[in-house]
Amino acid sequence: MNKKIIYFLTVLMILGVCSSSRAQAQTDHDSVPVAIAIHAGAGTIKRGEFPESREQEIRAKLEQAVKAGYDLLASGASSLDAVTKAITILEDSPFFNAARGAVFNADGQNELDSSIMDGANLDAGAVTGVHSVRNPILLARKVMTDSVHVMLMGKGAEKFARTHDIVFEDDEYFFTEYRWQQLQKAREKATVEDKTSSLSETPDQWFSTVGAVALDVNGDLAAGTSTGGMTNKRWGRVGDSPIIGAGTYADNHSCAVSATGHGEYFIRATVARDICARVQFTGVTLQEAADQVIMQQLVEMGGSGGIIAIDPQGNISLTYNTPGMYRASVDVNGEVTVAIFGDE
Amino acid sequence: MNKKIIYFLTVLMILGVCSSSRAQAQTDHDSVPVAIAIHAGAGTIKRGEFPESREQEIRAKLEQAVKAGYDLLASGASSLDAVTKAITILEDSPFFNAARGAVFNADGQNELDSSIMDGANLDAGAVTGVHSVRNPILLARKVMTDSVHVMLMGKGAEKFARTHDIVFEDDEYFFTEYRWQQLQKAREKATVEDKTSSLSETPDQWFSTVGAVALDVNGDLAAGTSTGGMTNKRWGRVGDSPIIGAGTYADNHSCAVSATGHGEYFIRATVARDICARVQFTGVTLQEAADQVIMQQLVEMGGSGGIIAIDPQGNISLTYNTPGMYRASVDVNGEVTVAIFGDE
Repeated sequence: MNKKIIYFLTVLMILGVCSSSRAQAQTDHDSVPVAIAIHAGAGTIKRGEFPESREQEIRAKLEQAVKAGYDLLASGASSLDAVTKAITILEDSPFFNAARGAVFNADGQNELDSSIMDGANLDAGAVTGVHSVRNPILLARKVMTDSVHVMLMGKGAEKFARTHDIVFEDDEYFFTEYRWQQLQKAREKATVEDKTSSLSETPDQWFSTVGAVALDVNGDLAAGTSTGGMTNKRWGRVGDSPIIGAGTYADNHSCAVSATGHGEYFIRATVARDICARVQFTGVTLQEAADQVIMQQLVEMGGSGGIIAIDPQGNISLTYNTPGMYRASVDVNGEVTVAIFGDE
Repeated sequence: MNKKIIYFLTVLMILGVCSSSRAQAQTDHDSVPVAIAIHAGAGTIKRGEFPESREQEIRAKLEQAVKAGYDLLASGASSLDAVTKAITILEDSPFFNAARGAVFNADGQNELDSSIMDGANLDAGAVTGVHSVRNPILLARKVMTDSVHVMLMGKGAEKFARTHDIVFEDDEYFFTEYRWQQLQKAREKATVEDKTSSLSETPDQWFSTVGAVALDVNGDLAAGTSTGGMTNKRWGRVGDSPIIGAGTYADNHSCAVSATGHGEYFIRATVARDICARVQFTGVTLQEAADQVIMQQLVEMGGSGGIIAIDPQGNISLTYNTPGMYRASVDVNGEVTVAIFGDE
């Protein structure tokens, strides 16, 4: 047989094999590792802080969100879709400090931040200081896909939202009595000189945020984060949640991270990027990198909080230096974990 | 002689030596490496684009700014002070896109961003979307030193400024005919669908920003950045300049970086932190790290711009993938460099 023909047939065969294994990867989901993790805030979460029934409701909501994301992944959907789905469920719940149920700023308003990142191409979208947006994560994603920008703020971001079919809600939708009472307490505690000085007195108010990270059948990572920021916040304070590299980061070459904690420290330590940079550049495992940043560096700086992270192999890290973190995951074996306290 | 006495005397001698060499380090500045670099934007800067006289004025301003910063360093001042001084001089000049002479957003306003970071302790301050602030770098520094926050935005940041003796100016102070005409041209070019779509047509409008990095007699690094963002910007767009880890980063363990360029790419690539992370974690030189990020990664992503950077030994990198960058430096030997075009 002519050598050129043999060569041609060989190339065809190789292409055929590659093509079929690719198809298998996209349809036979049992053989492809997919995984997801979510958080809904870290802080001084104590047993008995809320009634048993409320605790069960929170656990059920965490399970619902993580399973909804996992189901999408298992059906072949993208990690971006899974992360978005899980976060919208957490945003829609009044239990957590994101969208509905968000904390109030010093003016008695809900002021929302969110960001999302696609590990396949480093695309990213973020919004900060927006009001009345039902699902800030959907707006962050729209900024990523439908604008030439990464980050929009305040009224400008809301204008963009209104021209891009983003759903708005009135104040009543976001209101919860619990968060309103938190604001009243924070106002009482705040000094005349600096009405945000209640930081050290009520640290748990600072650490609620929701987020998700996921690995899909194509091996793509994604991360997203959404928050109402801190109770009684003033001066247009921006925390780490909408900052790419601080509260959210995803890169297929290393990992995907969503953070929750005392945002100022997370910005200064570029937490999300730093964990992935350590994985990428030093060869440590995801858990080792998370420990170095959250349990060592942040602790030395005095910064409280935690992260959820996932790597291209589907390894998951749920790491926090606070007594507890609302968290859930479905690992590559399909095993579901839901937890709140540090001792479980 | 008693062993304990010998030990005691030895310790005293060692302490004496350390103490005197420390004093020498703080007073005999010739023996301690201090250095500084500044930029005032990267882009398609062509010879003959402006009259010879204007070119000379720009070079003189760059030299004035970098020497003012260096003089402070030589007199023992902190890198934070040197960076602040150099940037205020660039902000006060109408030639550059920061504070006075800033570009106009789609509403015909100057919308200013700035950030600063202290490499000694990772303290940082940043503001985004502020109007009428004479020197945004002074406001960013005030956020760092006088608030519990890292980043403030818009009206809230202005409120903070007014309670902290920050100087405001009226619109006239910031106005330049040149920038106003840029806005008119950008408006004409922008499409009805997306008035920011002029990006690819007028890339040089995007890349003006000023910044400085410095190493002081105590071995402390600092970085700062200030910008008016992009001409005709809408929707409260936030670029990389106020983002810690993207436009500005400083850590004594690695390096200090200030960036200028197409901000969206710089955020997605966490440029400033990434250069320092490569120095810190992979052992490459500052220049190698800058080349990997600016000349390789950003080029592959399609992101234009450049950085100035300095490491704890005083090595300086002035790296850009654009035809030119307004830049100047004084190295550890006191040698002054001022340049604009890529071939000088």
